[in-house]
Amino acid sequence: MAAYKRLRIVRTIAEFRKYLKQWRLKEETIGFVPTMGYLHDGHLSLIRQANELADHTVASVFVNPRQFGPNEDYAVYPRNEERDGQLLDEAGCEILFAPSVEEMYPDGGVTKVSVPEIGDILEGHYRPGFFTGVATVVTKLLLQSLPDVAVFGEKDYQQLMVIKRMVKDLDIPVRIEGAPTGREEDGLAMSSRNTYLTPEERKIAPVLYQTISQVGEKFRAGERPPELIQWAKKQLLDAGFDKVDYLEIRDAEDLAPVYDANRPARVLVAAWLGKPRLIDNVAV
Amino acid sequence: MAAYKRLRIVRTIAEFRKYLKQWRLKEETIGFVPTMGYLHDGHLSLIRQANELADHTVASVFVNPRQFGPNEDYAVYPRNEERDGQLLDEAGCEILFAPSVEEMYPDGGVTKVSVPEIGDILEGHYRPGFFTGVATVVTKLLLQSLPDVAVFGEKDYQQLMVIKRMVKDLDIPVRIEGAPTGREEDGLAMSSRNTYLTPEERKIAPVLYQTISQVGEKFRAGERPPELIQWAKKQLLDAGFDKVDYLEIRDAEDLAPVYDANRPARVLVAAWLGKPRLIDNVAV
Repeated sequence: MAAYKRLRIVRTIAEFRKYLKQWRLKEETIGFVPTMGYLHDGHLSLIRQANELADHTVASVFVNPRQFGPNEDYAVYPRNEERDGQLLDEAGCEILFAPSVEEMYPDGGVTKVSVPEIGDILEGHYRPGFFTGVATVVTKLLLQSLPDVAVFGEKDYQQLMVIKRMVKDLDIPVRIEGAPTGREEDGLAMSSRNTYLTPEERKIAPVLYQTISQVGEKFRAGERPPELIQWAKKQLLDAGFDKVDYLEIRDAEDLAPVYDANRPARVLVAAWLGKPRLIDNVAV
Repeated sequence: MAAYKRLRIVRTIAEFRKYLKQWRLKEETIGFVPTMGYLHDGHLSLIRQANELADHTVASVFVNPRQFGPNEDYAVYPRNEERDGQLLDEAGCEILFAPSVEEMYPDGGVTKVSVPEIGDILEGHYRPGFFTGVATVVTKLLLQSLPDVAVFGEKDYQQLMVIKRMVKDLDIPVRIEGAPTGREEDGLAMSSRNTYLTPEERKIAPVLYQTISQVGEKFRAGERPPELIQWAKKQLLDAGFDKVDYLEIRDAEDLAPVYDANRPARVLVAAWLGKPRLIDNVAV
């Protein structure tokens, strides 16, 4: 068992609430960073952002089985709680909430939170039930902790927009903040799933970010989406990607197809490279 | 505009939260009674129960369009806010939250809370989408108010069980309490929809409660459900009811069919009498 400077690991909702309530009664603010663990610098920048936004920072590590499809990587999703604890401790996080699946879903837990429209497209289309799994577990985590602010990475941009929509629609009393995507030196978006890449695939992977960045630039320069997207998909396949699930220029808020070039837009992509399916996005 | 002793009517979520926060910071507890208005003595007994359970009692009146089907009575559902305010004031309620549909569902509000299984049977079968509408609006109301305890009538017994399940599954930080069904002297369950009954139908209506009470007694005495239910449905039709949607003996918690006579059970019924569809239930 690792010794931490300040971090406390809690396993039950009751204990998690007990610590947070003490702060709340003193009117001290709480920043919350929900994660699936196997932390990298991208996660740690979320912790640092939460440190800036609130008096206390807490995080959760929970690999949520209900957001994985039957043929997805739940069983092999990388886990390393001891290392996660060390990194969180060093970054200034005070509580790590690390519940079991049974603690999160006792008696089956049938209730579902779904976010139609924005949750059905793009990732939602390729991963049916994914955003319902995400929305349900994030609702639970937010209601367990009742933080003042919760920070999510822009890496999962559609997820961030789904959560913002859900929090607004359900009147969950929390502010949702997005944090910029952490990137390796060659531009690859940091992701726990990057560990699935072979050394050869790892060299190809940065083409994903390069390509969507170019799409953003060319779109701003006036190139038309259908041809631009066709060009970009070919770039990825030529570089060695196996398959492109989608590569789209969408409205930055509701992720609907972009008709008005004056509104903020986002380029979003999901593509397979060997074992992992990589996603990324950039602002236009 | 009526003058109230103590009651304050608030129209916005922000104002509702402002008042509740003042109490919460003093660690004074809040009891909440959500209603669709057109209050009767049944509602007022919920208010009195909330008075017993918490330092402050607040109520909402909101006729939620999203729990009515396209052919149901949303447009004509009875409303009388001034009278509701008077009754709440006299009963000791301090805040009436009476939002507009636009305040509750700005920008469309796409997010849905659904409670499969217990929300799909009985009422859920005959009123598709009803419990999703209820679960979504109750989630919103509970997260707008964050009360210590919320009180719901056992008159809508399945609704009470759906809400308990939802609150548990989503970790909504509130205690849900059921209150016994208010009844007229002849046993008819109080309901805002009783105003739809003609004088003649009103005389027939108490047969609903009499019949399910007899079903409960006969079940305890060892009579078998299939024959018992057949007998009870015939009683209702012979008395003048137009149609019985369901009349069932179910497990008192998950409302599954009863196999074990030693577990608490409930007799539940929905039947049409002229314009209104009446529901009622009794413990076995």
